[in-house]
Amino acid sequence: MDKNIPYKIYLSEDELPRQWYNVRADMKIKPAPLLNPATGNPVTLDEMSAIFCRELAKQELDNDTPYIDIPPEILDFYKMYRPAPLVRAYFLEKALGTPAKIYYKFEGNNTSGSHKLNSAIAQAYYAKQQGLKGVTTETGAGQWGTALSMACAYFGLDCKVYMVKVSYEQKPFRREVMRTYGANVTPSPSDTTEVGRKILAEFPGTGGSLGCAISEAVETALNTEGYRYVLGSVLAQVLLHQSVIGLETMTACDKYGIKPDIIIGCAGGGSNLGGLISPFMGRKLRGEADYKFVAVEPASCPSLTRGKYAYDFCDTGKVCPLSKMYTLGSGFIPSPNHAGGLRYHGMSSVLSELYDEGLIEARSVEQTAVFEAATQFARIEGTLPAPESSHAIRAAMDEALKCKETGEEKTILFGLTGTGYFDMVAYQKFNDGQMSDYIPSDEELEKSFAKLPNV
Amino acid sequence: MDKNIPYKIYLSEDELPRQWYNVRADMKIKPAPLLNPATGNPVTLDEMSAIFCRELAKQELDNDTPYIDIPPEILDFYKMYRPAPLVRAYFLEKALGTPAKIYYKFEGNNTSGSHKLNSAIAQAYYAKQQGLKGVTTETGAGQWGTALSMACAYFGLDCKVYMVKVSYEQKPFRREVMRTYGANVTPSPSDTTEVGRKILAEFPGTGGSLGCAISEAVETALNTEGYRYVLGSVLAQVLLHQSVIGLETMTACDKYGIKPDIIIGCAGGGSNLGGLISPFMGRKLRGEADYKFVAVEPASCPSLTRGKYAYDFCDTGKVCPLSKMYTLGSGFIPSPNHAGGLRYHGMSSVLSELYDEGLIEARSVEQTAVFEAATQFARIEGTLPAPESSHAIRAAMDEALKCKETGEEKTILFGLTGTGYFDMVAYQKFNDGQMSDYIPSDEELEKSFAKLPNV
Repeated sequence: MDKNIPYKIYLSEDELPRQWYNVRADMKIKPAPLLNPATGNPVTLDEMSAIFCRELAKQELDNDTPYIDIPPEILDFYKMYRPAPLVRAYFLEKALGTPAKIYYKFEGNNTSGSHKLNSAIAQAYYAKQQGLKGVTTETGAGQWGTALSMACAYFGLDCKVYMVKVSYEQKPFRREVMRTYGANVTPSPSDTTEVGRKILAEFPGTGGSLGCAISEAVETALNTEGYRYVLGSVLAQVLLHQSVIGLETMTACDKYGIKPDIIIGCAGGGSNLGGLISPFMGRKLRGEADYKFVAVEPASCPSLTRGKYAYDFCDTGKVCPLSKMYTLGSGFIPSPNHAGGLRYHGMSSVLSELYDEGLIEARSVEQTAVFEAATQFARIEGTLPAPESSHAIRAAMDEALKCKETGEEKTILFGLTGTGYFDMVAYQKFNDGQMSDYIPSDEELEKSFAKLPNV
Repeated sequence: MDKNIPYKIYLSEDELPRQWYNVRADMKIKPAPLLNPATGNPVTLDEMSAIFCRELAKQELDNDTPYIDIPPEILDFYKMYRPAPLVRAYFLEKALGTPAKIYYKFEGNNTSGSHKLNSAIAQAYYAKQQGLKGVTTETGAGQWGTALSMACAYFGLDCKVYMVKVSYEQKPFRREVMRTYGANVTPSPSDTTEVGRKILAEFPGTGGSLGCAISEAVETALNTEGYRYVLGSVLAQVLLHQSVIGLETMTACDKYGIKPDIIIGCAGGGSNLGGLISPFMGRKLRGEADYKFVAVEPASCPSLTRGKYAYDFCDTGKVCPLSKMYTLGSGFIPSPNHAGGLRYHGMSSVLSELYDEGLIEARSVEQTAVFEAATQFARIEGTLPAPESSHAIRAAMDEALKCKETGEEKTILFGLTGTGYFDMVAYQKFNDGQMSDYIPSDEELEKSFAKLPNV
């Protein structure tokens, strides 16, 4: 054990970041603008304000302001569960016999079980400030829906959640947590929206998808007085709020003289990875330091490693703006991988641009290998990780094992975004030896790419 | 907000207790000794060592040593999830409009979801030291079984868990967590033991009980080479290990000048309450300070408030030593209250003696009132509490509301022992308005008392 580094580094409340960091301000090539699908023109603030709270729409469009103040009400809420610990994985290092130093930023010590609360509370706050009655959203694995329910309960806002039907049925307890926080949860597709009815008519037995639930949530927000839509990932505003992860991590690293060589995060829509790496990427973009950034995605839904960098719809119903991103096509239906939070066809436009410029690397992993790492990690480090987070664990362990071979003492940092307490069906499958892997064929992807919008 | 007190007080690793505190050393009247049911004489170290690890048997019989060193291997493990935060419930104080200051010691930030890990790791350690192959235990709600599975995985010990059948069926995910940590989980009563077969023959459809699962676990330990039995509550050794909760709390209180007037904990077998209050009770017993201690139990299983202080069996099969304790009778079958961890007929002999001397108060609460408090707490303080812990929340809120009436600025401290993530069936019942209360009649209790052993 390194005498100067405790097992868990907890910053004091005084050391909590007071501002979010907007990595777009330091990007030389800005992410491509969202487009209005009707006109093909960049979406304006007014257009966006019909769907999103105005303040959030402003943040979405702001490519220039590097630091944005965190309102005191949000800071107070952050103090319920932040600062989050930066953990030195001494036990894992020993078990692997690696000379590498492994750290992880653990975001699971809150009832939502993940980092999602960081943006949920911000989005609920701005909705409340605007005098709204409520918000709508979608949830897949349920972490985002839970986080938003908690945030809305705190500010006394109504919360309507469209939950992907297959998750709604497989994860009744997630649903119940949301209900305990007062949210209204509807399985999607549902007959409460036009797009839902259309999808149900076309695919009567469908278990739904994130893209479809997004369409329903947006439609409901547009049709309900005093409501706006909120989203837990993909958007630039979400990466902004999630920068609190990276800022805390950087403060802790600087305080203890930790210099990460590799920074790893799982990547679905990009919220956690973007949040964790943003301030480090800022240093890299400004030429102050260098890091290797690694995005880890499921082999069954490989938007960065096998997707196209193109304009695409964010949702199945095609009601959302078009976003330029690495995408598998909005019609791509990911296989029922157990990491629901990574089962999305696209990727944050910010991360997509950084990846396209070669500033981030990406790799994909298969889910049985992920659950092997997850189980090993649980037994060694104590924490039972979420399937999503375990993608990062897998990659971190692989890097540490490489160091074992080469003898390099690299410093590896990864984001442990959440806990797997509501994912025990997946663990059961793994424990029973009934988990399989799926890799889409080239033909399947080509078929999906052929339907990309012509922009 | 009090400027000097942060939302969460985290001690540093250097401030972790290095010794457990044994409150029995400061008790003028010692708890009555365990008796051998065959001879009626106090159980000897040798007799006890047939069931328990020798070092734990020693701790069980030690009424004199005030401080016992925590072995370094256990301290290392503690650093995975300790120190646990002492939280100032600013949000709750504000929501209740009380002048009281409310603090809670939160033990739920680990995968077992509760304080149980504090003793599980100690018991697994001593088993490993003794060169054992494995341990057996019972679990009701599943928190203890989970904690023990984690501890055994860490030391590479086998772990056989007898899980009360009704919980095994209602909480498949708890079971799955244990399996993920490599434990062997059997629903109890089972046909793997003589006592299990006997109970199944007598009550074919029974959902089991803690008392019955204990009997099966003890029988299996006695009949399996290289195994011993371990228990998550009731025993004096468990209270000793759990004193780490109170010691940390006391260090934090002393550091920040916090002087609790009332200290509240839920009470099933007494592990959390005993652990939290021990060092404070030590001060009270030594005349150095005074506190009001409150044990909160379910109205459906009121061992302190309505039980008898008498020698009784700890288990249904009557294979365990006799313990003098507040008891409802080992034949008492608690109603299916959702706080499985409090559904036990007896109470720690240490706490029973302190209660009998008037050093602890007790009150009972009904479960709908408990879930009202739990839901309110979840929405206000963010953390979704375990049903067991919510008994303490109910009492703490009631005390705070009394302060609101009287204007007193009391300092209230309670133990938030765990999270309710695996208790969503109970929350669902409450959310759906289908939860009911049950209070045993005097006749029911008298009938049970009539069967107490004649010692």
